[in-house]
Amino acid sequence: MLTVKTPEETLALIEEQFSCLAACEQAPLAAALGRVLAEEIRAAEYVPDFDRSTVDGYAVRAADTFGCSASIPAIFTLQGEVAMGESAPPLQPGHCLYVPTGGAIPAGADAMVMIEYSEDYGDGTIGLSKPAAPGKNIVFRGDDVQPGQLVLPAGKKLAAQDLGALAALGWAQVPVRAAVRVGVISTGDELVPVEETPGPGQVRDINSTVVSALMQRCGAEVTCYGIVRDDRRLLRRQVEQALAENELVLLSGGSSVGMKDATCQVISELGELLLHGIAIKPGKPTIIGKVGNKPVVGLPGHPAAAFFISHLFMRPLLYRLQGRRTVSYQLPARLSEKLSANDGRTQYLSVSLEQRGGEWWACPLRAKSSQISNLAATDGYICIDRDTEGLAAGALVAVTLYSAE
Amino acid sequence: MLTVKTPEETLALIEEQFSCLAACEQAPLAAALGRVLAEEIRAAEYVPDFDRSTVDGYAVRAADTFGCSASIPAIFTLQGEVAMGESAPPLQPGHCLYVPTGGAIPAGADAMVMIEYSEDYGDGTIGLSKPAAPGKNIVFRGDDVQPGQLVLPAGKKLAAQDLGALAALGWAQVPVRAAVRVGVISTGDELVPVEETPGPGQVRDINSTVVSALMQRCGAEVTCYGIVRDDRRLLRRQVEQALAENELVLLSGGSSVGMKDATCQVISELGELLLHGIAIKPGKPTIIGKVGNKPVVGLPGHPAAAFFISHLFMRPLLYRLQGRRTVSYQLPARLSEKLSANDGRTQYLSVSLEQRGGEWWACPLRAKSSQISNLAATDGYICIDRDTEGLAAGALVAVTLYSAE
Repeated sequence: MLTVKTPEETLALIEEQFSCLAACEQAPLAAALGRVLAEEIRAAEYVPDFDRSTVDGYAVRAADTFGCSASIPAIFTLQGEVAMGESAPPLQPGHCLYVPTGGAIPAGADAMVMIEYSEDYGDGTIGLSKPAAPGKNIVFRGDDVQPGQLVLPAGKKLAAQDLGALAALGWAQVPVRAAVRVGVISTGDELVPVEETPGPGQVRDINSTVVSALMQRCGAEVTCYGIVRDDRRLLRRQVEQALAENELVLLSGGSSVGMKDATCQVISELGELLLHGIAIKPGKPTIIGKVGNKPVVGLPGHPAAAFFISHLFMRPLLYRLQGRRTVSYQLPARLSEKLSANDGRTQYLSVSLEQRGGEWWACPLRAKSSQISNLAATDGYICIDRDTEGLAAGALVAVTLYSAE
Repeated sequence: MLTVKTPEETLALIEEQFSCLAACEQAPLAAALGRVLAEEIRAAEYVPDFDRSTVDGYAVRAADTFGCSASIPAIFTLQGEVAMGESAPPLQPGHCLYVPTGGAIPAGADAMVMIEYSEDYGDGTIGLSKPAAPGKNIVFRGDDVQPGQLVLPAGKKLAAQDLGALAALGWAQVPVRAAVRVGVISTGDELVPVEETPGPGQVRDINSTVVSALMQRCGAEVTCYGIVRDDRRLLRRQVEQALAENELVLLSGGSSVGMKDATCQVISELGELLLHGIAIKPGKPTIIGKVGNKPVVGLPGHPAAAFFISHLFMRPLLYRLQGRRTVSYQLPARLSEKLSANDGRTQYLSVSLEQRGGEWWACPLRAKSSQISNLAATDGYICIDRDTEGLAAGALVAVTLYSAE
């Protein structure tokens, strides 16, 4: 017998029942932004590969500068100039070499004196007016990375700065996960496509747009299979096709009891029903099943509920399938108004954030769960525990940001 | 005479000197995720367009249920069933109508009683055991949106939930800004492409990868023009080509004084130099110029500096050019270690975040500014004011997240 599960139990079930289904492929570095790293990256070389100057100035033996000052400069014979991108000749005793920022430090030198503290006497000698400690203004070979060092963990979504590390290490091709394919089927006799004007009793198909966009933003390749009428045979045919072409199938809409029954029956016929109901508000009527190793999910019909369930559970499910590590950030904020106790179910409320006097304030949307327009332009959500007695205005809450991950 | 500007002055200069250069175009709703809205969206219709049930149950006149209970149910004649997606017939006195979740409420009814509180006597009558207040379990016409209501402001980057609002209102085509085209030119004799093994004194071209990826993530269409050698005529030719093909041109690399001079000279020849140096650490050697109405920017050569300058100033500049509103979130965290006073310049430090005992801790990277690998896998940055005397371990700092915007 399938009972209603808590949010924690639902996440544990996802973790337990499903695993990575995304193949590994090679992406050119310039196309790897936002992709999921398929394996950990360890350095195979030194970065930088040679000692480099961080300033424009003169490479010297540090000891030769000790005691010099503006009134008593240390005098060096100018040995020449190190050109950018070329190796440096060894430094001769008593000499200095001009090195530009990023240029190679000659063997025998162990410090750079900035050009600001130098005077060119025009006779082949240079006066330096500031002593330099050994290592001054130099980045040494391997200061950034040493061979064997872990640079990026497997499963990370690649950010701009990660591509920089890969570039430094010469990864022109990057091992990434193939995109997980997600099939979205809209169900419900009341639905019409977005471009149509709804007749009496009809509504536009909102959910498939929201759910597809969310999955797409999380890296999925989404195919929409259009609207299926409340008919079990049609539904089954569509689910079978979507399963053949995708790793994850989401049924969106179908809030009526009949449609829920049909969804359960189709999942049971093709595979196994794992969960029937999550104890949260909004979003209780959620169904999760498994056909082979692929999840098939029936989402709630209420648009706001479908959005929350997708954010809370379908995102982690997708990340599981694509082998991606999940990160989420919570922002502390003060509640803008009093919230009354909820009815024994964990409740999620969308909030917009306002900055007042250096603090974030979370303004909850008092929307009924079928409403979607109010969700637009919100920044994140707060979760109210099922055992909470209500929250006072000004109470500190944790806002999970929709945009950060 | 161009002086070094503070970060605030630099942002003000960007705001003052540049304006939106992105044309308006129509995108299909399914392709509008992440695009920038070109105009504000106001509702032209009611959402929902009819009174809808939020439960499976019976539509009644609320007054007819008053006083009923499990022991003394109120008895109604079953008038029939409202099918999903169809209009409802008017409710007759003393009658009830079955309405599924999302179905239309008949004229004359003002409440829904859930099916859980009903008994079907099988003789055409239904007993209801729970009284309902007027409006119970109903979403009324326009509860979500009324005609004329502002739903989304111009300049917003469209998120999944925003697409839901657009779907509800029938926007199958969405007015969005064309992508801003950004040309990236790498400069420097020491640079080799990522796929090559650097010779003595050479390094791989990291910056153009990082800067391109960051601009791409912010919605730009990036073209890389390869590596230009330190030669003013070659540089000018490349800048002219990039200006003809893009709205923003970024010169990346070229940390030597000679290259900086060449960049300044080329900008002065083609247009106007606006800024030469920003008083921050890392990243001081930044050049901003204007050719016609287009910005041309010389970024610092140090990879970490190029990354910070891009995040702090090139992102707002790009958003300005694409008419996008900027949002950024700061997360309060405790500093994992003591930081000493800085040298009079505002300092930016990349941090990785760790959760310990319900609090975020920010662990600063002690990287020298030429290092990039350490930036990988960091979560955001903290800013240390130029007048700060240093910060104690455990001090509360504000972390700006790289991933949230």
